[in-house]
This record gives sequence, structure tokens and C-alpha cells, in this order.
Amino acid sequence: MGRIICAGLGPGDPDLISVRSDRAIRSARHVAYFRKAGRQGQARRIVDGMLHPDATELPMEYPVTTEIPFDSPDYNRLLSDFYDDWADRLATLAEAGHDIVVLCEGDPFLYGSFMHLHIRLRDRVTVEVIPGIPGMVGCWNATGEPITWGDDVLSVLMGTLPEEDLIRHIRAADALAIMKTGRNLPRVRRALAAAGRLDDAWLVERGTMPNQRIARLADVDATDCPYFAIVLVHGHGRRPLTEAEE
Amino acid sequence: MGRIICAGLGPGDPDLISVRSDRAIRSARHVAYFRKAGRQGQARRIVDGMLHPDATELPMEYPVTTEIPFDSPDYNRLLSDFYDDWADRLATLAEAGHDIVVLCEGDPFLYGSFMHLHIRLRDRVTVEVIPGIPGMVGCWNATGEPITWGDDVLSVLMGTLPEEDLIRHIRAADALAIMKTGRNLPRVRRALAAAGRLDDAWLVERGTMPNQRIARLADVDATDCPYFAIVLVHGHGRRPLTEAEE
Repeated sequence: MGRIICAGLGPGDPDLISVRSDRAIRSARHVAYFRKAGRQGQARRIVDGMLHPDATELPMEYPVTTEIPFDSPDYNRLLSDFYDDWADRLATLAEAGHDIVVLCEGDPFLYGSFMHLHIRLRDRVTVEVIPGIPGMVGCWNATGEPITWGDDVLSVLMGTLPEEDLIRHIRAADALAIMKTGRNLPRVRRALAAAGRLDDAWLVERGTMPNQRIARLADVDATDCPYFAIVLVHGHGRRPLTEAEE
Repeated sequence: MGRIICAGLGPGDPDLISVRSDRAIRSARHVAYFRKAGRQGQARRIVDGMLHPDATELPMEYPVTTEIPFDSPDYNRLLSDFYDDWADRLATLAEAGHDIVVLCEGDPFLYGSFMHLHIRLRDRVTVEVIPGIPGMVGCWNATGEPITWGDDVLSVLMGTLPEEDLIRHIRAADALAIMKTGRNLPRVRRALAAAGRLDDAWLVERGTMPNQRIARLADVDATDCPYFAIVLVHGHGRRPLTEAEE
């Protein structure tokens, strides 16, 4: 029996992959990854130049991404069938004695797509998950400022939440990481403004990647909604003062 | 001029250090790390067997840890002087042309002690920070369950918060990571119970390390307050159903 190994890739810079994931990726003979149909895909791009020459690639192409609403029954059924199908294909390969490495951006257990395969595979084959540096961690490191100090509360929010929920959670937290922005960015911006935090917010696009971009959200054109971007608000909690501050 | 390189170590398993941090640590000739006086220290333990034979070690021993209250003026002054002193020593070494690697558990910019050096050093010498997998990420991977799905809200809380604040934040979030437990664990437990989440809570001690321990918090003896432990509550948000669930 082979194993399914989900390799967390971290935030994007291949040098930030863990030693264990790096080793698994370089030695893999079967490599699977999610992508939008017709694209190379972010996960595959991160490992460019790392794969073994004999590796067989298994691109798992989403049947739908943003074409239909994510809360519709059609979206749910299409995605469910897609995950069922790929879980079957990967399990069959493992049962035939092959190890398969599944690439996963960030950390697989933090909002990762692999979880949908994991729940379908774990009672059938051996599944090993290698953690990764989450995308948001790469983004706050890219800003050069700590995200939290002392007993700051950090909340991680999805831009897909209703505006009232966003406002309530933004008001309650000291530090924030808001993911799945893209077309939700105008709503995220309104919620931050309503909670009085817009001027503290940063937009980090492709954090740790060569073409990363860091801007104050208030300075970003309202029609500019990059897909692979995270909004951050830093905390400023309790800490011993520096000489300059005393 | 040398540089100060803060190497994020990740959650504890040396195999989960990033490729870049691993390289920096193995080649370093000056290695600094925080520890409690008289102990080896967790950061130093993680890199056991990795340091260059010619490396000079600089243990930065806290003048105080839990002996006096962290919110007292004495605690603040002692810590502030300690960070000022070490910032001076490291800057002087860098100005003499040496690179210094500072070890930091987890991710340096998420509640890390290095931030207190960073704020004192960054206008004086070149400081490079290498992100790491946060301790909480290692802990939720150790449970074998995703921490968040769909649009779950994840809140990261400190066990040092007042009980009423803990209850309020626990009620508002779907998923939770509660750090700095130790002697605060009884309060954390009461707050989880008051918010109706105690039965969903896990205590993960030394996650990803050889002697890791995972237990339901409700089953842990009330007098057992391990220091290096994180409390987790998993979210169960929106996701496409599996065949078995349909």
C-alpha cells in the first residue's frame, strides 16, 4: 500500500517550504495539485524546477471556481463530485503501491482544499499531512512588522462573510488577517471603515513571491481587487517600552 | 557590517524548519537564543545537532519569567533593560562584521520575543526575519483535523486575558487557538465552559515534538497546567458534503 502525503508549500517562496516537504516533493514520482482549468496553478508554480524528471503530474482541475455562487446547490454538488472522483483516483493509485504527493499552498489544515480529499481518504489509505507556513504568516512577514504583541487578539476572517459580521469581528479584535478578498474587497473595505480601522489596514498581494506588492488599503484604487491578496491590520498590544518611548 | 538574521524555528520538529532557516542555522558562526536562566531552553533544544562546530553561542537569559507579575512596573523595567542590553551587544557584533543568527520558536512576528530586539535594532543594523510555522499550526496538525473550513472565523487568544474577555471572544469565534495557558489554564477552562465550548476543546502539549500529548481538555486533571501547551477548538464551517453525509 502506498501513502498519500500532503505537502504544505508555505506562502509562495520555495525557500520557505519545510525541510520535510521539500524532501517529499523532490523525491515524489506522483505529484497531484489543484488548479483552475487552463492555468498552471499557484501550487505547481511554487515547485517549478523542483520535481523529479520521472514524476507523473496529476493536475486536479476545479469544475467551477467563481462562475456560479459558492452557496448554490449546483456549486456544492459539482465540488462534491469532483472531490469524490479525485479521492477515488488517488486511493486507487495508493492501493496499487504508489506514494502520491499532493501539493497544498500555505498550511493544508487552514482553509486548504486538501481537507476535502482528506475527509474522503483517511479511512481508506494512509494519509500524512506536512504542515506549512500559512499564506497570512508570509504576508505579515512581508510587511516587516509583528502582527501581534503581548495579549493582542488576532482574528482570521474570510472576505466572503456578510458585511455586518465583518464589522462585528473587526471591532472585537486587535489584529486581523482577512483572506478570500478578491471581488469581496469593496465589502471588506466598507467594513473596515465602519469599524474605524481602514487607515490601519494593509493589502499584501503575493506575499514572499518575487512580484509581491504591499500597499495601504486606503491608497488602493477601489476598482483594483487582486485575487491572491490578504488584508492585514497589525496589533499594538502590551510590551516593554524602548528607551525612545520611555 | 554584519547582519542580524532571525530564524523562525517552527513548532518544534526540526524537520519542519524552512529550507532557508535550516541553511542559516547550519552555517551560522554566532547563534543567539532566549532561555530561562539555568535551562537549555526550547529554541536551543530544537537545533540540537544542527549547529556548526565553530559556532559561538549567545544564550540570552531572561532576568525574570513568572516570578513577578508581568503587568508590574518592575517587570517592565527589567525586561526593557534586558532587551536594550542584548540589542546593544548584538548590534556591536554586527558592526564588527559578524552575522548573528537569532533562533526564534514558531514564527518570529506572531507573539515572538525577537520583536523586542527587532524594534531596537532595525534602525541600527540590517535585520532579516525568516518566517516559521507557528506553534499553533503544528498543534492543529498534530490533532489530525483541519482547524477551519469554509468561512469559519479563527481567533487567537492569550490565556492571560481577563475571564470576561475570554468568554466574549470564545463566543464570537468558530475556531480557537488559545496560547500562554500554563497557570492560566483553570481560567481558560472556566471561560470555555461558560461559552459552551469546553467539550470541543483539545489541549496539545509540545505539538510535533517526540513527547507530544493530545487530550480533550475536559479529561485533563484540573491541577495539571503544562507550560508549553495550546488549547484548540476546531471549526466545522461550510463545505461540500461527502457521500456518507448526503
